[in-house]
Amino acid sequence: MRIGLDMMGGDFAPLEAVKGVKLFLDTVATDAHLVLIGDEEALKPLLSDAQLDQSKYSVVHSSQVIGMNEHPTRALKEKPHSSIGIGFHLLQSGKVDAFISAGNTGAMMVGTFYSIKAIDGIQRPTISTPVPREDGSYGLLLDVGINADCKPENLLQFAILGSLYSQHILKNDNPKVGLLNIGEEEGKGNLLAQATYPLLKDNPLLNFIGNVEGRDVFTNKADVIVCEGFTGNIVLKLAESIHDIAVRRNINDEYMHKFDHETYGGTPVLGVSQPVIIGHGIAKGVAFKNMIALAQQMIETKLLDKIRESFVK
Amino acid sequence: MRIGLDMMGGDFAPLEAVKGVKLFLDTVATDAHLVLIGDEEALKPLLSDAQLDQSKYSVVHSSQVIGMNEHPTRALKEKPHSSIGIGFHLLQSGKVDAFISAGNTGAMMVGTFYSIKAIDGIQRPTISTPVPREDGSYGLLLDVGINADCKPENLLQFAILGSLYSQHILKNDNPKVGLLNIGEEEGKGNLLAQATYPLLKDNPLLNFIGNVEGRDVFTNKADVIVCEGFTGNIVLKLAESIHDIAVRRNINDEYMHKFDHETYGGTPVLGVSQPVIIGHGIAKGVAFKNMIALAQQMIETKLLDKIRESFVK
Repeated sequence: MRIGLDMMGGDFAPLEAVKGVKLFLDTVATDAHLVLIGDEEALKPLLSDAQLDQSKYSVVHSSQVIGMNEHPTRALKEKPHSSIGIGFHLLQSGKVDAFISAGNTGAMMVGTFYSIKAIDGIQRPTISTPVPREDGSYGLLLDVGINADCKPENLLQFAILGSLYSQHILKNDNPKVGLLNIGEEEGKGNLLAQATYPLLKDNPLLNFIGNVEGRDVFTNKADVIVCEGFTGNIVLKLAESIHDIAVRRNINDEYMHKFDHETYGGTPVLGVSQPVIIGHGIAKGVAFKNMIALAQQMIETKLLDKIRESFVK
Repeated sequence: MRIGLDMMGGDFAPLEAVKGVKLFLDTVATDAHLVLIGDEEALKPLLSDAQLDQSKYSVVHSSQVIGMNEHPTRALKEKPHSSIGIGFHLLQSGKVDAFISAGNTGAMMVGTFYSIKAIDGIQRPTISTPVPREDGSYGLLLDVGINADCKPENLLQFAILGSLYSQHILKNDNPKVGLLNIGEEEGKGNLLAQATYPLLKDNPLLNFIGNVEGRDVFTNKADVIVCEGFTGNIVLKLAESIHDIAVRRNINDEYMHKFDHETYGGTPVLGVSQPVIIGHGIAKGVAFKNMIALAQQMIETKLLDKIRESFVK
């Protein structure tokens, strides 16, 4: 198993990316070989300082960098030798089995959609966020931002993707699927939610438990919560801000600190044909480590094969 | 000034309603005369125990009660002598200047829309929630649930209504208006947000500061945050659940406790021709007190006249 990691992406790269690699190799049992993509000159001293097992990684040099604020499509086109450009090239040509970057999110999206494509039958790939719960387990909320306007069929597909992810990655057996809505009963909500409810209810792949409300997001009522990306993104960023408030106010509560994005590090793009994980720009060591571990888990559990099987006509 | 209060509405009525009346009369400077609508038999001993100044209130007997789960339209039609039915009758006939109830929310909505109507020029009345901020001031989020599907023009009107409310009731001078969205720049977001942005930007009544994201909801970036009622309701209930989590986890933080719905007690329906305040079903004494104080403030500040002036053709 070979996992590609963009060492130049994110506000604190490459130092924090190197820290993440070290953390991963020191703490996670792995057969993975890490393919570290970045500026060799910048990486060499950091990797040497980190005293890593040299058999566990190799470096692929990238001579260009896509900045965090560059125009995604243009940047990818004009900078094929950037770490993101090379990462997608390696993924496309089968030289890595997964690709991770905390760099320019737009460029990661464009790279994902144009170089590796959606799985057959999937109309819209999606991104999700794990939702920490008080008992230590994780729920899943999706979509959290790449599909701002959705049709009911899109939400149905997100539900199936989320359900598989919850089962295989978050280890929730027969995950309960809820539709994020503004009332409990069928028939409540906006036009999209009203039209989506029967699709979820009738689908044999789903353990649909009905509507869930804002107050249920952090509970165990549902393991997978489905919504369009507008609402989902607002919920995600609001939850992250709660962590910031807790830090600012010196609230020392283990649960509140789980809202820290570092805990999960990044989000996989679900529904595309190879594992791609997009990190938060402010990712630090722990986040990088968690993203590498997630990529390994996605490969080990053959999550993408399970997705393919669920979407076979 | 005469303020009508449904004494039978809410899970803890009439006891908590009486407590709220007492709290109000004991702590708020007021010329208001309170018109307490409820079952005389049930109220008498409670009012007597509370030792209130008898010149400050009168009781209007209601012989029927609308249950929390009754069908709103049917209940209002079949129970004209219910506290909600009588309340709207008094409001309509000018015998009270405001009406408050923590009873059946649907019946309150139906009563509001059918008996007192929208102000000329307002397409959709709206409900809002105050948003606690760390500096002790309050922002405003609207719509929070009665308008699940909106057009850009609706959001523009919510912005104007919210702006007036923020200025006159929450005392934010020249309130900054933000559009709840999933990116900062103009052009981001779903189709509704994209189409709404220019309307807010071009309106001379608004101090529009652009998009705000989920992470900005609890900050001072905007004083008024506008969205459709689907997203707004989810944000509202999620924020309330944060308070519940803080209580469950013994987090003793003043700010976190401000997410308690008791703090604001209820929401006025903005855009209708007379003050109507709808309380949370679980309202207790403090919530009732705060709702009465809010009704008084809405009358004193002539908020509805200011709204009328803003919507004159």
